[in-house]
Amino acid sequence: MGSYEDLLTFFEHKLEKQTFGYQPDELYAPIRYTINLQGKRIRPILTLMACELFGGDKEEAVSQALAIELFHNFTLIHDDIMDNAPIRRGQETVFKKWGANIAILSGDTLFAMAYQYAQQARAEILSQTLSVFSKTAIEVCEGQQYDLNYEKDNQVSVDEYIEMIRLKTAVLFGASLKIGALVGGATKKEADELYDFGINIGLGFQLKDDLLDAFGDEEVFGKMTGRDIITNKKTFLYLKAIEVADSETRKELTELYNETNIHDDAKTTRVTDIFTRLKINTAVNKKIDAYFDSGMKILKGIDINEENKQILIDIARRMIDRDK
Amino acid sequence: MGSYEDLLTFFEHKLEKQTFGYQPDELYAPIRYTINLQGKRIRPILTLMACELFGGDKEEAVSQALAIELFHNFTLIHDDIMDNAPIRRGQETVFKKWGANIAILSGDTLFAMAYQYAQQARAEILSQTLSVFSKTAIEVCEGQQYDLNYEKDNQVSVDEYIEMIRLKTAVLFGASLKIGALVGGATKKEADELYDFGINIGLGFQLKDDLLDAFGDEEVFGKMTGRDIITNKKTFLYLKAIEVADSETRKELTELYNETNIHDDAKTTRVTDIFTRLKINTAVNKKIDAYFDSGMKILKGIDINEENKQILIDIARRMIDRDK
Repeated sequence: MGSYEDLLTFFEHKLEKQTFGYQPDELYAPIRYTINLQGKRIRPILTLMACELFGGDKEEAVSQALAIELFHNFTLIHDDIMDNAPIRRGQETVFKKWGANIAILSGDTLFAMAYQYAQQARAEILSQTLSVFSKTAIEVCEGQQYDLNYEKDNQVSVDEYIEMIRLKTAVLFGASLKIGALVGGATKKEADELYDFGINIGLGFQLKDDLLDAFGDEEVFGKMTGRDIITNKKTFLYLKAIEVADSETRKELTELYNETNIHDDAKTTRVTDIFTRLKINTAVNKKIDAYFDSGMKILKGIDINEENKQILIDIARRMIDRDK
Repeated sequence: MGSYEDLLTFFEHKLEKQTFGYQPDELYAPIRYTINLQGKRIRPILTLMACELFGGDKEEAVSQALAIELFHNFTLIHDDIMDNAPIRRGQETVFKKWGANIAILSGDTLFAMAYQYAQQARAEILSQTLSVFSKTAIEVCEGQQYDLNYEKDNQVSVDEYIEMIRLKTAVLFGASLKIGALVGGATKKEADELYDFGINIGLGFQLKDDLLDAFGDEEVFGKMTGRDIITNKKTFLYLKAIEVADSETRKELTELYNETNIHDDAKTTRVTDIFTRLKINTAVNKKIDAYFDSGMKILKGIDINEENKQILIDIARRMIDRDK
């Protein structure tokens, strides 16, 4: 089974062959731009790995890996409009560079193109893989809606937050693995187990993202840091801080999140100072480790080659030990 | 074979059963709202008719008809953001009522839900019908992009305009018929012929829409009239007027389309006056009739029951003889 690096090279090569050089250029230039921003490609690589894990040929999983990656890029384009985000992967977002209309429409096109790849699964599993794909797409939208809701809601619980990131982020990792497993010939049960593994590492991945958004190095991370704080996102960091803070600090933090008349930098600095004082990093990392461990437990129960299993563990590790 | 009215009742009943009552409500309320706005349902009815035309059971075509109708509603939600449109089917647009973010996201969700229906076609034809569906979805986006481009472009030709409306509007009529035909057991050739028939009546339908946008009764039409003129859309009416006008009138018309400092009502009145003076209505109706005749010629060549053929002719007639 290929390592992350092997499969990344393999996938990038496949992606390069899809030129997306159609007309009108106003529609396809933003698509090429987004695809070429060099994401981490973790999701499509999970699809390829899951296929190989069950003895499948990675060539057969390429269409599904492309479908997943295109779908992911579509969500980024639309999310950046809704989040009013200027920077993505170190570059201007499509929204910032071309405006909302082109971002909406090139995103829609990319979504339909993702389906053009998704529908290339072999007839025997097509209905199954498409079900996973569409269900996931809808859940990702639901997660994004909860995310938008929670920006304005002051009564978000930790459980609600975890459910939101499960929908918005984790299910796509689960689906990437499950679809790859189905292509590779996994049983329904094995594919479902791999899905659950994906949910757990996906949750860990998102918590790491929250941490990087507050404390990451902007140049390495490739996104503007502090965005979650500026947009009043009740991330796990915030919710944990509210939970463990004394009443005075809690009041300060709540006020900062409801204050409209404060400079972004000042707000970010004051909030991250509170997080540091309360050792929120440690709490988040503990939670990430717990999800990682749950994922490992599920993986242990699946009867596959141990060497291949290790490759999957390595990529899961990489997803939470990253600094970008 | 059911008439338009029979099939409308049948389809509305099926649509009502799909409650779309999921969570979060912020996402699904706009979807229910849009679906319940009582569109003409021409596209899904074409799907059902095409299925029956080839001896298929309309029950089997319901999923495809729903897919088509949901997809169409998705495009309306997103188009209304891009066109900054306040009114649709006599009611506030989702964009106007809930804002751009919810319109983007509920549209995306509806698109994915459309695929959930589309992927219910029987295994034997699934790959074929999905290909038509995704190709059409992409073409509709391309058409919308050309439409946006042409608002700013002063050198649009009639041919370019026709190609734009073919993509934006006509291909979905073609696809509605082709997918229904495939469900009904049509040969590839028959399905393609029905597609071409759909393209022709779709072009006629859009030209009628252009006419209604300029001259329709706002209350009957259900949309604000004059939008095309206000947004400088180079419709067939405008392009024909430029073609037949004397140099003075042409100058006046061009200036009106480039004038930013004029009240919307004044602009609409002056432009429609020019259209009336130049008898543009007659020219447009002639063009519509030509497309109708081309459609009829194609239909004549398909070997199907004459009585059923007449029902299809009636709906085509209805598409171009409408006042809303």
